Amino acid sequence: MKLWCDFHPSGPAAALLKAGVKGHEVLFAGEGHFPGEAEVALGQPNPADILAAKHLRWLHISSAGYTKFDFPEFWQTIRARQVLVSNSSSVFADPCAQHALAMMLAFARALPWALLRQFPVAANEAAGQAARAPAVEPAPADLPGWMSDPLRKKSFLLNDQKVVLVGYGAIGRRLAELLAPLTAHVVGIRRRPRGDEPIPMAALSAMEPVLASADHVVNLLPHSAETTHFFNAARLGQIRPGAFFYNIGRGQTVDQPALIAALASGRLAAAYLDVTDPEPLPPDHPLWTAPNCFITPHTAGGHVNERARLVAHFLENLRRYEKGEPLVDALG
Amino acid sequence: MKLWCDFHPSGPAAALLKAGVKGHEVLFAGEGHFPGEAEVALGQPNPADILAAKHLRWLHISSAGYTKFDFPEFWQTIRARQVLVSNSSSVFADPCAQHALAMMLAFARALPWALLRQFPVAANEAAGQAARAPAVEPAPADLPGWMSDPLRKKSFLLNDQKVVLVGYGAIGRRLAELLAPLTAHVVGIRRRPRGDEPIPMAALSAMEPVLASADHVVNLLPHSAETTHFFNAARLGQIRPGAFFYNIGRGQTVDQPALIAALASGRLAAAYLDVTDPEPLPPDHPLWTAPNCFITPHTAGGHVNERARLVAHFLENLRRYEKGEPLVDALG
Repeated sequence: MKLWCDFHPSGPAAALLKAGVKGHEVLFAGEGHFPGEAEVALGQPNPADILAAKHLRWLHISSAGYTKFDFPEFWQTIRARQVLVSNSSSVFADPCAQHALAMMLAFARALPWALLRQFPVAANEAAGQAARAPAVEPAPADLPGWMSDPLRKKSFLLNDQKVVLVGYGAIGRRLAELLAPLTAHVVGIRRRPRGDEPIPMAALSAMEPVLASADHVVNLLPHSAETTHFFNAARLGQIRPGAFFYNIGRGQTVDQPALIAALASGRLAAAYLDVTDPEPLPPDHPLWTAPNCFITPHTAGGHVNERARLVAHFLENLRRYEKGEPLVDALG
Repeated sequence: MKLWCDFHPSGPAAALLKAGVKGHEVLFAGEGHFPGEAEVALGQPNPADILAAKHLRWLHISSAGYTKFDFPEFWQTIRARQVLVSNSSSVFADPCAQHALAMMLAFARALPWALLRQFPVAANEAAGQAARAPAVEPAPADLPGWMSDPLRKKSFLLNDQKVVLVGYGAIGRRLAELLAPLTAHVVGIRRRPRGDEPIPMAALSAMEPVLASADHVVNLLPHSAETTHFFNAARLGQIRPGAFFYNIGRGQTVDQPALIAALASGRLAAAYLDVTDPEPLPPDHPLWTAPNCFITPHTAGGHVNERARLVAHFLENLRRYEKGEPLVDALG
């Protein structure tokens, strides 16, 4: 069997891949090969190359996102040719869910505001951006970093808080598991709840009252034509005042000027964004200095052994493919 | 029954206390009363007043820490008079455990280093403190805040990491529960394991190999003569190189110059301290600028509804006291 692959892993990931594909021929994209030559394609191929790949039987995407493949002609062709498609959701469910929980707990324990007190902020002080300052009492001049009482009163328990997961898939499922011992009330929102989800669900059409009672709104939406600016001014306005907003989906799903306005007015307590539009976010973009807006640069899925876990996940699916078993993270 | 109390709660906590002690007489310390007049004392009385309180049958301490009461004469007198003593560990177990988990996840997701990129640090830049800079590649000059790849590679999953809890009580028990869905390997250390703990335990005397294999060392020790500088240079040197160190016990249990040396040499990956010696930490203290050292100003136990939860916990014990049932968080 011929396997097309568009990356050359190194270290443990390389050893894992080499051992796992023994007996098969690997065609590396870097050596001029195309998916059309192979039965199996692994990585981030060009959708046009996939549409032209007559011999292809299975595409395994090495990310959780698959926006570039998500258009009608692609799925029509894939279905007509009975090509299997899978992605790597399972690999990124844990790091993304842990990232979301890290952000939630950081807010609950007022960590960003404590750190801003530890490290005087040059840009804000220079620009006199009072609005950017932490929304807690100013520290005493003689103890700039030690501001115990206001930070303790700003801290809260996640117990009994209402957490709304907008876009319910592998990440949301894992995040709900991580939140379980914290006894938070987790509600998922998806277009059409299936009824077999392990947490209470609401349909997209019934979302408004759920947002109105939310303490935390976690946006996990992928980007598509339907989700562009899903969180517009109207939807952001439906969220309970004082709630926290998180984006670890895609930047394009949020109307960013509307989010900045909701933060500037104090309507939202704070936002933690792992994704923005565009990426990288330009240095002068107003999101960087929006009040109580904290940004990680699309790092939610990252982890030190990411490549090895991606290869292990592919190899598990390769085993299933060879035996004709259902693939993990099957799409379409 | 006469109840002595050294705080005047307000808001919901006041209503809760008023309703809960109906039928009893409350002697407020602010109005010149002493524990000696009462059968029950609630709050943070002077130990000398407790030793002199002939009518006292029960002392309920409104904190988790009780260092000031923890001397032989106190316990001898308490036992001789058969006075019950309880503290408020249960109230602070959840906020402290969530604080510790917040710190661990912040490191796992590289949040402090991402935030330091978002907010240029005045003090460091002015002083040219290169050592204080995040231990990741410098960001490109045109994209100071966007540093995705190095932060992704600095991120890691808590799954399968070894977490050592030094000092195992209510906080450690709760932290182990919160870590359970993360599938971390949690080991507790206490002077003499009882054998009924829900996690694997090691005795203090067998701690060295446990520290040598730790990814995270969470110091939860109270302060006493025995625990002063427990984490000295020798013990810090037993921790696996590259591990993370946390202190949400008491500042006095750590030899701080030795900790700073371990951070400066890069032997420890980072430290997150909620407690220091002294508190407040003076603005020019070297801990503030030690490499990869992050500080919250003794906020781990804090939460917005702290006073109401303290009162509710006392009232649960009052109910038990009246019925002669064992108290929650009984000491001695």
